[in-house]
Amino acid sequence: MTTESAFVAALRGLATDPAARGLLDDAAVLEIGGTNLVLSHDMIVEGVHFLADDPPGDVAWKLVAVNLSDLAAKGARPLGVLLGFSLAGEDEWDRAFVDGLRLALAAFDLALLGGDTVSVPKGAPRMLGLTAIGTAERAPSRAGARPGDQLWLSGSIGDAGAGLRILKGESGPPELVERYRQPRPRVELGIALAPLVSAMMDVSDGLLVDASRIADASALALKIELGDVPLSAAFMEMLGEDRGARMFATTAGDDYELLFAADKGRAPELLALAEGIGIPLSRVGRFDPGSGIRLFDGGQEVQLPKRLGYEHFS
Amino acid sequence: MTTESAFVAALRGLATDPAARGLLDDAAVLEIGGTNLVLSHDMIVEGVHFLADDPPGDVAWKLVAVNLSDLAAKGARPLGVLLGFSLAGEDEWDRAFVDGLRLALAAFDLALLGGDTVSVPKGAPRMLGLTAIGTAERAPSRAGARPGDQLWLSGSIGDAGAGLRILKGESGPPELVERYRQPRPRVELGIALAPLVSAMMDVSDGLLVDASRIADASALALKIELGDVPLSAAFMEMLGEDRGARMFATTAGDDYELLFAADKGRAPELLALAEGIGIPLSRVGRFDPGSGIRLFDGGQEVQLPKRLGYEHFS
Repeated sequence: MTTESAFVAALRGLATDPAARGLLDDAAVLEIGGTNLVLSHDMIVEGVHFLADDPPGDVAWKLVAVNLSDLAAKGARPLGVLLGFSLAGEDEWDRAFVDGLRLALAAFDLALLGGDTVSVPKGAPRMLGLTAIGTAERAPSRAGARPGDQLWLSGSIGDAGAGLRILKGESGPPELVERYRQPRPRVELGIALAPLVSAMMDVSDGLLVDASRIADASALALKIELGDVPLSAAFMEMLGEDRGARMFATTAGDDYELLFAADKGRAPELLALAEGIGIPLSRVGRFDPGSGIRLFDGGQEVQLPKRLGYEHFS
Repeated sequence: MTTESAFVAALRGLATDPAARGLLDDAAVLEIGGTNLVLSHDMIVEGVHFLADDPPGDVAWKLVAVNLSDLAAKGARPLGVLLGFSLAGEDEWDRAFVDGLRLALAAFDLALLGGDTVSVPKGAPRMLGLTAIGTAERAPSRAGARPGDQLWLSGSIGDAGAGLRILKGESGPPELVERYRQPRPRVELGIALAPLVSAMMDVSDGLLVDASRIADASALALKIELGDVPLSAAFMEMLGEDRGARMFATTAGDDYELLFAADKGRAPELLALAEGIGIPLSRVGRFDPGSGIRLFDGGQEVQLPKRLGYEHFS
């Protein structure tokens, strides 16, 4: 057991209010006066979640995007954010960060509501936190998948992971770097999907680990077909589409796509929605009674990789 | 202009939603479905807001208390918190932190709703963030003081500042250290005061700087009488009550008392409330047309200290 999972387990003992959803969901869902408030808080740390030489405007974008992705996974319309910012005393970086924040707030019609700035000792890594608040008609949990449900995925995965490899020296299409640096949370899609799904979350730690979280939370077994996992043209141009490429795509993080379970009968409606909103939706797996996740490639079972993705609390 | 004030000025340009109150208040006040949600986010950093050898349980308490103090200043009843936690890989510290968090949550009947943990590089200072959410019938701003209003203060000030001096080697009563390490946010008092005041905030950066913020936000002049500033018996035992001691008390931070403006006619009601709730309320100043803050001692004007308190955005 890692320190982080032990710590989170200890926190779970404190998070007994139903609004906390056992700290097992993307966001808290708090009912106040008949309104479902959806609240997420994510932090990003220099050297861990972003690189020291990433453009500061992109760091601001990412900080907003990762939180909105959590809200999107609960079908919430975002209203505003509170910012926690560590001032490292580099004016130029800070100014560029504010410019990026302005763009992100405008792009998602978000209010900057408040927050805090703290000065940190020279040399300490930058550490940024954001709380996002939104409202949802109905906030699907991770735990609602039913036997026979299909597992769906929006957009394509692996792009951000490939983009990070480009930043570390490999060559590939620049749009993959953009997918890493400027993720697009699926806000409108999440709102449209919420009434149609039985469980939903966002893919941030890797498809396999996140899919297994839905299966575990729903107390079901899950089969995933690698061949059905949607890859982008840019991804395939860089890394191909063989089993190795698909294994990489399904375990890389930072996708910020939506992953959801839906009754088989919903498929026509979901495909029509995808058409209307202009974001592909792909069926990549199926839930059955039982437990555990199994992986297939062209119908043939393959061994699960040792690491299913990034394990952490969020 | 410091880097921090320049940064906050830039953020203000983005915080155009009325719920943000221009980033000039203790908390955001967002109306959703007829309910006033009050949201605060404060961060504390090792070596800046707490000492590396402070007991971890007290750090947890303080993190909760500083946020609840912001909510109290807006007359809000707190509901829950989201935690941002940096794991430094020291299990014992983390365990003691969780124990302290449990105590604080129980003391204020708060739900732990969610949050995030991040691992930080070895040697980086701990950095903790907390978002608190509550609801208020009416959330007084800092800007509502009127000419002729009296300035009131709850409890006593300077105790935490004196406690910090004890931790740095001076001698004095241990209860002052407790006031520094375990501040008691004035939650019930804030709820009771909200309908009676014209402006309110909490004192966290020093009485003089915080009082000048109410005066500035309300576009009024303010006179403060040093002799009326309430000091505790423990404070006076350690530092006396002469002008120097009072100057120290009014510029030290971490008091987490409530500071408010109220019509002169409210005085009997306020004194009865103080009696009922068991927390003294003292009149320490008066608002008049004009601008700026002036300091008196025994009715005689004295020069303002160079530093009125701690200047930062919160």
